[in-house]
Amino acid sequence: MSKRSAAAAEAAPAIDLSTLSSKPIVIEQVRPEIDHGRFAVKRCEGDTLRVGAAIFAEGHGALSAALLLRRAGEGAWQEYPMRSVNHGLALWEGSAPLTDIGRYEYTLEAWRDLWTSWVDEVRKKVDAGQDVALERLEGRALIAAAQQRASGDDATYLKTVLKGLDADDSAAAQVPLMLSADLAAVMARWPDRSEAVRYDLTLPLVVDPVRARFAAWYEMFPRSQGTEPGRWATFDDCIRRLPDIRALGFDVLYLVPIHPIGTSHRKGKNNSLVAGPDEPGSPYAIGSAEGGHTAIHPALGTIEDFERLVRSANHLGMEVALDIAIQCSPDHPWVTEHPEWFKFRPDGTIKYAENPPKKYQDIVNVEFFGPHQYELWEELRQVFDFWIRHGVTIFRVDNPHTKPVPFWEWVIRALKEAYPHVQFLSEAFTRPPMMKMLAKVGFTQSYSYFTWRNRKQELVEYLTELTQTECVEYMQPNFFTNTPDILPEFLQRGGRPAFMIRAVLAATLSSAYGIYNGFELCENDPVPGKEEYNNSEKYEFKVWDWDRPGHIKPLIARLNHIRQDNPALWTFANLRFHPCENDDVLFYGKMTDARDNMVFVLCSTNPFDAQHVWMEFPLADMDVPADQAFEVEDLLTGDRHLWTGAWHHYYLDPAVNPAAVFRVTPWRPVDYRAPSL
Amino acid sequence: MSKRSAAAAEAAPAIDLSTLSSKPIVIEQVRPEIDHGRFAVKRCEGDTLRVGAAIFAEGHGALSAALLLRRAGEGAWQEYPMRSVNHGLALWEGSAPLTDIGRYEYTLEAWRDLWTSWVDEVRKKVDAGQDVALERLEGRALIAAAQQRASGDDATYLKTVLKGLDADDSAAAQVPLMLSADLAAVMARWPDRSEAVRYDLTLPLVVDPVRARFAAWYEMFPRSQGTEPGRWATFDDCIRRLPDIRALGFDVLYLVPIHPIGTSHRKGKNNSLVAGPDEPGSPYAIGSAEGGHTAIHPALGTIEDFERLVRSANHLGMEVALDIAIQCSPDHPWVTEHPEWFKFRPDGTIKYAENPPKKYQDIVNVEFFGPHQYELWEELRQVFDFWIRHGVTIFRVDNPHTKPVPFWEWVIRALKEAYPHVQFLSEAFTRPPMMKMLAKVGFTQSYSYFTWRNRKQELVEYLTELTQTECVEYMQPNFFTNTPDILPEFLQRGGRPAFMIRAVLAATLSSAYGIYNGFELCENDPVPGKEEYNNSEKYEFKVWDWDRPGHIKPLIARLNHIRQDNPALWTFANLRFHPCENDDVLFYGKMTDARDNMVFVLCSTNPFDAQHVWMEFPLADMDVPADQAFEVEDLLTGDRHLWTGAWHHYYLDPAVNPAAVFRVTPWRPVDYRAPSL
Repeated sequence: MSKRSAAAAEAAPAIDLSTLSSKPIVIEQVRPEIDHGRFAVKRCEGDTLRVGAAIFAEGHGALSAALLLRRAGEGAWQEYPMRSVNHGLALWEGSAPLTDIGRYEYTLEAWRDLWTSWVDEVRKKVDAGQDVALERLEGRALIAAAQQRASGDDATYLKTVLKGLDADDSAAAQVPLMLSADLAAVMARWPDRSEAVRYDLTLPLVVDPVRARFAAWYEMFPRSQGTEPGRWATFDDCIRRLPDIRALGFDVLYLVPIHPIGTSHRKGKNNSLVAGPDEPGSPYAIGSAEGGHTAIHPALGTIEDFERLVRSANHLGMEVALDIAIQCSPDHPWVTEHPEWFKFRPDGTIKYAENPPKKYQDIVNVEFFGPHQYELWEELRQVFDFWIRHGVTIFRVDNPHTKPVPFWEWVIRALKEAYPHVQFLSEAFTRPPMMKMLAKVGFTQSYSYFTWRNRKQELVEYLTELTQTECVEYMQPNFFTNTPDILPEFLQRGGRPAFMIRAVLAATLSSAYGIYNGFELCENDPVPGKEEYNNSEKYEFKVWDWDRPGHIKPLIARLNHIRQDNPALWTFANLRFHPCENDDVLFYGKMTDARDNMVFVLCSTNPFDAQHVWMEFPLADMDVPADQAFEVEDLLTGDRHLWTGAWHHYYLDPAVNPAAVFRVTPWRPVDYRAPSL
Repeated sequence: MSKRSAAAAEAAPAIDLSTLSSKPIVIEQVRPEIDHGRFAVKRCEGDTLRVGAAIFAEGHGALSAALLLRRAGEGAWQEYPMRSVNHGLALWEGSAPLTDIGRYEYTLEAWRDLWTSWVDEVRKKVDAGQDVALERLEGRALIAAAQQRASGDDATYLKTVLKGLDADDSAAAQVPLMLSADLAAVMARWPDRSEAVRYDLTLPLVVDPVRARFAAWYEMFPRSQGTEPGRWATFDDCIRRLPDIRALGFDVLYLVPIHPIGTSHRKGKNNSLVAGPDEPGSPYAIGSAEGGHTAIHPALGTIEDFERLVRSANHLGMEVALDIAIQCSPDHPWVTEHPEWFKFRPDGTIKYAENPPKKYQDIVNVEFFGPHQYELWEELRQVFDFWIRHGVTIFRVDNPHTKPVPFWEWVIRALKEAYPHVQFLSEAFTRPPMMKMLAKVGFTQSYSYFTWRNRKQELVEYLTELTQTECVEYMQPNFFTNTPDILPEFLQRGGRPAFMIRAVLAATLSSAYGIYNGFELCENDPVPGKEEYNNSEKYEFKVWDWDRPGHIKPLIARLNHIRQDNPALWTFANLRFHPCENDDVLFYGKMTDARDNMVFVLCSTNPFDAQHVWMEFPLADMDVPADQAFEVEDLLTGDRHLWTGAWHHYYLDPAVNPAAVFRVTPWRPVDYRAPSL
C-alpha cells in the first residue's frame, strides 16, 4: 500500500483492499502458466522465454510493463520490457534469454505510464489547435518529478530540459521540446513505479540442457551385444558396438536394467513360468544375493567397466541413459534387510505383482506409503544419486504411473537441485491426465501414444494436441518406434516400407525420438496375435547380425544427420501440418523463428501403395512471395527442384521413397539490371 | 498428514511433503473454476451446480470422490457423491442443487475405495478359477475395519456379515456373500477416509435470483413519459405508463438518472454547447444546488413519489433498475463539500471530462485513488445503499470501465453481503478483457457487442464465444437492441423488418435482453452519418405517441410471452446453432436438460430479401428418432407442422415473418395393435 493510501486508511479503516482479488492494474491470462503456477514451465538452454499477458486498467491512460526473471531463490529480478501487441485484447508480450540450465522463476509488473499519457493527450489537443498552457504546467511537474528519480546523464538531461522550459514559457518553445522523442526516451527510463502492480504469482521455470528436447535414443540389452550365442555379453562388448551406433547418428545410449537378476520364479524363454538352469531371466526382476539397484550383474562387468562404457560413449558424443524400475525380485537384498518396505499378506508372504488374472511372481513391489515411507524414499533417491555419480545423466523410469505422483515430484526435485543437468524419461503408457501430470511434476520427457498412431488423421490430431495445447509447455514426448514390449502391428504387417515410414515420422515429427535395437534391421517376428516380440530379448540372450540383409541403417543414419544439420528439427512446438490432397500422405513442416531453416516432410502412411500427391506450402508463413522461386532439396535423395507458388506435385513409392524431407531455400530476388547501366 | 506418516517423519525428518505441489490422489481440471478460484462462478436460484474434475492416482485401485458445498463462512460441508464419467480421461462429475440465493463455496474430496478394489480383484481371480483364500482373509479385515467406523443398521449388518464369514470359512460360502451388492452398498457408506485428499482450493459461487439471467428490460427517460410537449413529466406520468409496458411483457423498468441536473456548461438540444434557458440538460450531468446522487430532480417528484413508482411497478411484477453514473456536474454538492475528492489543475480548476480532442465541460470526475479514497468509496457505497432502501433492486452502472476494477469488486461485494438479491448491469462497451473482468469481480449482467453484430457469421462466432467458453460461467450478457447512445446502422437502414429481426434475435438468443423506448415504434431518425438519435431525449423533453403507425408492439409482446412460456428460453448457456443452408438465415435452438421444452428459432438477417431455407434439426440431441414425427408450432404465427426427419424447408418474408419461433413437441410412438388382439 502506498504512503498516501496508508494515511487515508487511518481515516476510514473499514475498507481492507487486501481482501480483494483484483488490483488497480489487471494482469491476467499470463502464458505460459501451468496450473496457476503450481508446476514449472520447461525450456532449454539458449531458448527465449516469451511471456504474454492481458494487462489493462480503467480509462484510457497508457501503461508500461516488464517481465521479471530470476534464478529460484535469488533476491534480485532481472527486468525485461514488455510491449503491447494487441490493443483490442489488451495483450502484452515480453521475452528474456535463457542462457543457463537450472530452476528459475518469473513474474510481471505493470505501472501507469504518466508521461506517455500526457504526450498522447497534448499531441491530440495541439493537433486540434487547442490551448495547452495548463497541460504544459502539468507536464513540467512530471519532468521535475522524474528528474528527482533520475541519476547520471539522464538527471543532467532532465535538468537541462527544465531550465529550457523555464527560460521560455511560450507554447512555441515548450511544445516541441516536451513532445520530443529524446525526452520521451529519458522519461520512459524513470517512471513513477510507486504504485506499480506486481502479478500475484511467481511462476516456476526449469531450463534443461538442449538434449532434453533434441535427442535420438538407441535402446539395447547390454547382455545381447556380443557375438557368442547363449552367453552374457559384457560392457566391453557394448563398447565395441559404440562406433556403429554413433555412426547411425544416435546420441543417447539407453541400457535396460544392468543389475543382478533374481532366481525365485525366474521367467524362461518367451515369458514361460519356469526357467531352465542356463536361462538368464528378465532384467526387470531386479536383485539377488549379489545385490540390488546399485549393483551390476557380475557377468556384465564391474562398476569400473560400466564407467568405462559411459566414458567411451561420452567420448563419441553420446550420453548413457539407465533404466530405473522400482521393483524387486523376491531375492532383492531389501526384502531381508528392509522387510518394513514391503506389504505382507495374512500368510506372511509378500504380495507379488499382479494385474488380475495376470501374475508376476518374479516381482514384488515396495510400499510407498508404508510406515517407513521416508526411509524408503530416501533410499530410492540414493539409487539415482549412485548412478549419477557413476556417470549416468539420463534415467528412463519404468512404469512411473504405478508409483505415487508426489514421490516423483520430491525425488526429481531433490536430484535436479543437486544435478540440474540430469534428465528423466517417463515410461507411462497410461491415461493422458497421468502422463501429463508426471511431466508436470518433473519428468523431462515422456513416452507417448505415437507408437500406435499410424493413420494420417490420428497423427494430425495427436500431434496437434501435443504441440498446440498447453502441454507443449511442460511435456516433451519421446517418440519410440518400438520397445522390447511393443512390436506394433503396423511394423508386423507393413514390412520394410513400414519401418522406413515410422523412422521418418518419429525422427521428424518429434525433436526427441528413439528406436529399440532390431528396428534398424526391420526385425518384426511377433508372438502370433500379439504386439510382442517372439523370442524376446527380455527372457534370453540374443546375438544379432547388425548387417543382415534388408536393414535400413543408411536411412536412419541419413535421418539423424538431417536432424543434426537442420535447427528447425531441434524443437517440437514448431510443428505445423499443411494441406495435402491425399488421405494416406502427411505433409508437415518445421521452421526456425528467423526462417533461416525450413524443413518440410511429405510422408506416406501406406506401406503398400504408391501415392501421387499435391501439397501446399505455407508461403506467407515462410515469408516467400507467391511469385518468388524457392529451391527445394529432398534431403533423403539429394534431388533438387526449383518451385514457385504454393501447390506442388510429388510421387511416393513405398519400396523406394515412402517419404521426402525437403529443405526449402528461397532464392533472393535478383536485380537483373547490369550494374553499369 | 496422517498419524502414521507423522511417526515416520520423526525418523527421517529431511522430507517435507508439504512443500510439494502434488498429492497422493490428483484432483485437477476442476470445472467450473474461474482464475484458480479467485473469482466466483455464478448460478441462479433453482439451478444445479455441476462440477467436473480429473481425479486419479497411481496404479489401478478404485477411487471415490465427493463434491462439497457450503454457504460462505459456514463450517459444515454438505456432501454430494461424484461418479466417474470417463475412465480414459479420469473424468468425474458431481452435482448439487442450489435452492437459495447467496454466496457459497465448494471443493472436492477423493479417497481410495479399498473395498471396490478388493471386489474387482477377487472377481477377476474367481472368474479365472484362481484361489482367493488369502484375499478372503484380507477382505474380512476390511469389513471388520468398516464395522468399527459404521453405526446404526449398517454396523449391525456388517457384524452379521462377519459372523457369517466366521461360521463357514469355505470359499463356497464366503465368496458369494463377500461379492454381494448389498455388502458393497454398505461398505461404500463407510469408507476409510483417513487418507482422503482435499482439492487445494475452495471455489467461490454466487447464487442470484433468476431475474439475474432471465429478464426483459425496458429503458426510458422519466421526464419524457408525459403528454405535454416542452415540460417535465413526473413519476406519476411514469406510473400511468406501467400497464402498457407490462402488457408488452417487460419485467425490468430501467430509468436513466433521475437526479438534479447541473447548469454549468449545460448541453442543449442535439448536444449543442450552449443550452437555452428552458432546456433541461443531460441527466448524466448529475448534481446541482438541489442535490446530488441521492436527490431527485424536483420536477419529477419527491422520494415518496419515486417509492410509489417502485411499488406500482413491483405490483405489476416489474422491478425498477436505476442508472448510476459516477460523475458530477460542476454544480454537484460534492464539489464544494468534498473538494478533496477531485483533482485540481495548476490554475485551481477541476479537470473536466475529456476524450481529446472531445471535451465534456458539463461533467467532472472524482479521483478514485486520491488522498481521501476511502471516504469517497464509502460515500459511493452509500449512494447505492440509499436507493436499495428506497426499493431499487437493480443498478445499471454507466461506464464502469472508466472506474477502477477493485472499487467495483469492493462495492458490489459489500452491497451483496447486505442485500444478496441486488443486481448490477455493467455498461462497459469496451475491450473484451475489461468487460469480462467487470463480470468476474461482481457485475451480474453485462452489456455486449450484440448491438453491432448483424450478419450470420459474426453472430454465430460471438454467441459461441459467449455461451461455450469459460465466460458463460460468470458473465450474463444483456442484449440491448438500442440505447439512447446507439441507433445501429442496421436499424437506420433496414426499417421495420430490421426492428423485427433484432427484436427476435435479442429476445431469443439471450435470456436477458432490453430495448430503449422508441424501439417498439421503429424510431430510427439518426444524426446523419452517426449511430446517434437525432433530437435525442438526452438533451430535450420528448412526448411520444406510443401507438403511432408502424409500431411492432404486438411482436414484442408476443416474444416476451413466448419467453415466459418456454423454460428453454430462461437460460443462456443452452444456446446451440444448427445447420441451415442460407448465409442470411440463422437457425438455433434452446432445450431444457430434460428435453421437456425445445424451442428453435429461424431468423433472417436480411431485412430486404425473402429467403427460402433448409434447416437441420439436431434429432439425436432432441432425443427424437429419425423416423418419429414431431409437432412443430410456429409460436409467432400459430401455424403447426407435423415433421419427420432432420431437414425441413421454410420461407421467410421480411415484410411479414422475418423469423419463426418453433416449439417442438415429439409425438409419442403409438402401438397401433388393438388392445384386444
